[in-house]
Amino acid sequence: MLAVDVGGTTIRAAAVRDDVVDCLHEVPTPAAEGPRAVLDRIGETVAAVRRAADPGAANRWTVGVGSAGVVDTRTGEVLSATESMPGWAGARLVAELTRRLDLPVRAVNDVHAHALGEARSGAARHARSSLLVAAGTGIGGGIVADGRLMAARHAAAGHIGHVPAEAARGLACPCGGVGHLEAIASGPAVLAAFRRAGGDGVSTTRELAEAARDGDPEARAAFDRSGRALGSALGGLANVLSPEVVVVGGGLANAGDLWWPSLRRAFDDELIPAVRGLTLRPAELGDDAALVGAAALWQTEDLQEVL
Amino acid sequence: MLAVDVGGTTIRAAAVRDDVVDCLHEVPTPAAEGPRAVLDRIGETVAAVRRAADPGAANRWTVGVGSAGVVDTRTGEVLSATESMPGWAGARLVAELTRRLDLPVRAVNDVHAHALGEARSGAARHARSSLLVAAGTGIGGGIVADGRLMAARHAAAGHIGHVPAEAARGLACPCGGVGHLEAIASGPAVLAAFRRAGGDGVSTTRELAEAARDGDPEARAAFDRSGRALGSALGGLANVLSPEVVVVGGGLANAGDLWWPSLRRAFDDELIPAVRGLTLRPAELGDDAALVGAAALWQTEDLQEVL
Repeated sequence: MLAVDVGGTTIRAAAVRDDVVDCLHEVPTPAAEGPRAVLDRIGETVAAVRRAADPGAANRWTVGVGSAGVVDTRTGEVLSATESMPGWAGARLVAELTRRLDLPVRAVNDVHAHALGEARSGAARHARSSLLVAAGTGIGGGIVADGRLMAARHAAAGHIGHVPAEAARGLACPCGGVGHLEAIASGPAVLAAFRRAGGDGVSTTRELAEAARDGDPEARAAFDRSGRALGSALGGLANVLSPEVVVVGGGLANAGDLWWPSLRRAFDDELIPAVRGLTLRPAELGDDAALVGAAALWQTEDLQEVL
Repeated sequence: MLAVDVGGTTIRAAAVRDDVVDCLHEVPTPAAEGPRAVLDRIGETVAAVRRAADPGAANRWTVGVGSAGVVDTRTGEVLSATESMPGWAGARLVAELTRRLDLPVRAVNDVHAHALGEARSGAARHARSSLLVAAGTGIGGGIVADGRLMAARHAAAGHIGHVPAEAARGLACPCGGVGHLEAIASGPAVLAAFRRAGGDGVSTTRELAEAARDGDPEARAAFDRSGRALGSALGGLANVLSPEVVVVGGGLANAGDLWWPSLRRAFDDELIPAVRGLTLRPAELGDDAALVGAAALWQTEDLQEVL
């Protein structure tokens, strides 16, 4: 299978065989040039991977796509997208790539692909049901129940960053709402919390993590608060969803001891007896997860058996 | 189909044909006498319904059970139950009723049965995916995705009363945790909130509702707070689950204008653009929902196609 992960800054395409990523090509996403340019670039990149993986053009290939934005899995269209990809909402993703590549194409949201990948061969590979969380620029997620990704109405399921969180009280959320988890627990939110507390001298979440490791108390407090808020929300969702495992990935998952202990403690504190002891673990596939998950869209005859 | 709804105080059994409840028998649950007495009473009641519905014993019957407690849908055993049914945890519900009735038996949790019933022929009958909420003595729920009930690990999915809620800050929850939705939004929690605010003179949630309708400001505030807390939590869950409809039943759903406007406003305020305009509506089947849902356990050859 050919797989491609379309993000606001990077397009990553590869051949995926037995859940192993090969012939990886990475190119910048020409997001500012509009959807046609993005579709062209995706098509060229996937075609280049195909030539590299199969120089003699001897095999029949299929294409799985994980893309930024809410992707309607039935029509293959992008229903909505953020400002990072102007005009991407409305793109006829599957139809346009099918035309450019002359290959069968299936597509889902990139975080959904990420969840499918971890469920298939990553940290949730032994579980029938899992909740995957991507904590980075935003807080996204995917729910896998009995091996199927829960897409639900408009393929929008998994927006776990938009549950109310006490620690986010009064804070504006990127969705336009107020007081949501993402407003306190995402990477940019950690930085914003640090600045609200009077901290300065850093300009990225990564630099803030360095300051925290060097002992800056406000920086440490910001990561602690983010971890606790996310852990508490995930514990509540675990009570509702009762998965076998909760998997946490994304940039913040690399913050290590600044973040994980707070996350775990708050998570455990919320669990009801019926789910107590539930496993919370780091994602394992990193950037490959979305590619493995996108390829997995072709694991059955009917896409609806995956969703 | 024969269907039975096993609660801590009442056993209700009926014949269900085309989702219509017939030959309803109601008897008290001999909960204090232990699980064997309860199983005997269920068996007798279902047998009585069968005799009434089919005096000539001409038909082949199957039995669907919705029962209090967490019911393992694979083994048919009760995994856990509250104090209202001593010893019910551990009951081999399906095996014991099969033996007593000599009929095929399937069982799920009663709130799950309730959700299946509303999804099949109640307020969610036109939806492929729905979230059903039962707000009464506790706050329970069931998630239906693409016509299947989400049971998940240990059949425990749907415990929506146990998400963190800001309004419940510091309040003990019946689950043993602190700060969960159920601690502010259930019927008993509304009464407790009224008393914490200095209110007295009423001993039940129903009396409190009367006091509120008579204009008692503390009573009105308690219902308003409950509705807002539930609405906010349901809005967050709607963002995560993206159902086509959210259905609210249970005793509190009868509180009318004391409760619904606060619930709706808080719900709408949480919704992200991808799910904005989502329908929130009252349950329609009342006490029949669990019977219709229990009967629906036999809608397919394989129970796992329902779950």
